[in-house]
Amino acid sequence: MEKKKPLILLSNDDGVSAKGINELIRGLREVGDIIVMAPDGPRSGASGAITSEHPVRFCKVHEEEGLMIYKCNGTPVDCIKLALHAIVPRRPDVVIGGINHGDNSAVNVHYSGTMGVVIEGCLKGIPSIGYSLCNHFADADFSPLLPYVRRITEEVIENGLPVGVCLNVNFPNTSVYKGVRICRQTNGTWDKEWKCCQHPRGGEYYWLTGEFVNFESDAEDTDHWALKHGYVAITPTQIDVTAYGVMNELKSWDLNV
Amino acid sequence: MEKKKPLILLSNDDGVSAKGINELIRGLREVGDIIVMAPDGPRSGASGAITSEHPVRFCKVHEEEGLMIYKCNGTPVDCIKLALHAIVPRRPDVVIGGINHGDNSAVNVHYSGTMGVVIEGCLKGIPSIGYSLCNHFADADFSPLLPYVRRITEEVIENGLPVGVCLNVNFPNTSVYKGVRICRQTNGTWDKEWKCCQHPRGGEYYWLTGEFVNFESDAEDTDHWALKHGYVAITPTQIDVTAYGVMNELKSWDLNV
Repeated sequence: MEKKKPLILLSNDDGVSAKGINELIRGLREVGDIIVMAPDGPRSGASGAITSEHPVRFCKVHEEEGLMIYKCNGTPVDCIKLALHAIVPRRPDVVIGGINHGDNSAVNVHYSGTMGVVIEGCLKGIPSIGYSLCNHFADADFSPLLPYVRRITEEVIENGLPVGVCLNVNFPNTSVYKGVRICRQTNGTWDKEWKCCQHPRGGEYYWLTGEFVNFESDAEDTDHWALKHGYVAITPTQIDVTAYGVMNELKSWDLNV
Repeated sequence: MEKKKPLILLSNDDGVSAKGINELIRGLREVGDIIVMAPDGPRSGASGAITSEHPVRFCKVHEEEGLMIYKCNGTPVDCIKLALHAIVPRRPDVVIGGINHGDNSAVNVHYSGTMGVVIEGCLKGIPSIGYSLCNHFADADFSPLLPYVRRITEEVIENGLPVGVCLNVNFPNTSVYKGVRICRQTNGTWDKEWKCCQHPRGGEYYWLTGEFVNFESDAEDTDHWALKHGYVAITPTQIDVTAYGVMNELKSWDLNV
């Protein structure tokens, strides 16, 4: 009996029409059967948001042998939840978010809708990977990274991932990579985050923008360092955010009233 | 010279009119000067979402000695970013999210807009606390927990928190607590998450709902166990989500192409 092809569930936060997810489909077409459930428009910065205040709908937009594409009016996380509930014929072998138009390394993991997809897949017990390119332009060139996307995806399908751990994979904006590095999340923060504009009818409005400040730019084991030096950065990311290291200290506080 | 009163920055994900945040103001009124920047309506489940696709505005809705209240059309995280950029006269001593109408223990931390507020405060280097009550009704009784909110907040203002660590504090839905427990995040997931309904003009739509499945309901060191047994659960939560424990294993994979 022929071995069943892997089933791959894809989503993103740039929307179903974005170049990144269509390049991802192209790169993984030979690896397995693909189901896409992606937002019907941009949801950049959606993080792990879910839709609780209004109902969610989806519809099929494309179907061919081994590839089904759906769009949804919800968040990236909604897309994964809904696909797993209402679409997939069997449990996917891997959940993938991306390819994101923009860098999701360092603390960006906390804002990223791409990583929202990936963390949701991981919460559902499925090996999950986020792919992001450090280039936010709509026409970015994703072709140099597709062989790596395929290699990493095949390896994850083959080996699985430890329970509660997913991968945050970021690619530098170059055409040739120096190699792949397993990294930790860079410590830093965003600064100068708002551009204030005058509304023609009076009052002010603000656009979110900003500069990332790296608190440890010389640390060679961080994802930001790897990207800056031309490496593919893989940051293993965990679901359990407990700060175990401070539990004993907190237990010494007198917090009863 | 009189010691300056602490400055407290509040936000939430249930919106500026929710009972929870107004009870939080009541509970902390004597502790310090309060600035509120909260969403203009419900943003439950907003996680760490930021607004990138449209501009954000805010306006003052209340002012009295030691209390300023603003509302904003953005996400809970936008509220903190914008308040720190455009409102606060000095660096706040503490950032607080809540009091949330609903449980943010266990994996809910990944979906919670309340914890989005708290993680954002922590990313900005400010001691930050999320308060949530395991009762999602709009008229929930918050009065039993206010003495604890005050006690924990004063302790955090006094002692600070370790860099990169914030507190996720959940209260069981009871009028008397057995005490306070320092906990770890419960391992579990959501199941049966969608209710499918028929639209009167045809087609289907889905409401997000679900049941939490606890994978370790007997584990006495978890936040879910503490809440179920009548304790206030404090889960120290960290910004760094690197899965350090799997880095060596991943380094043994051959991922170059």
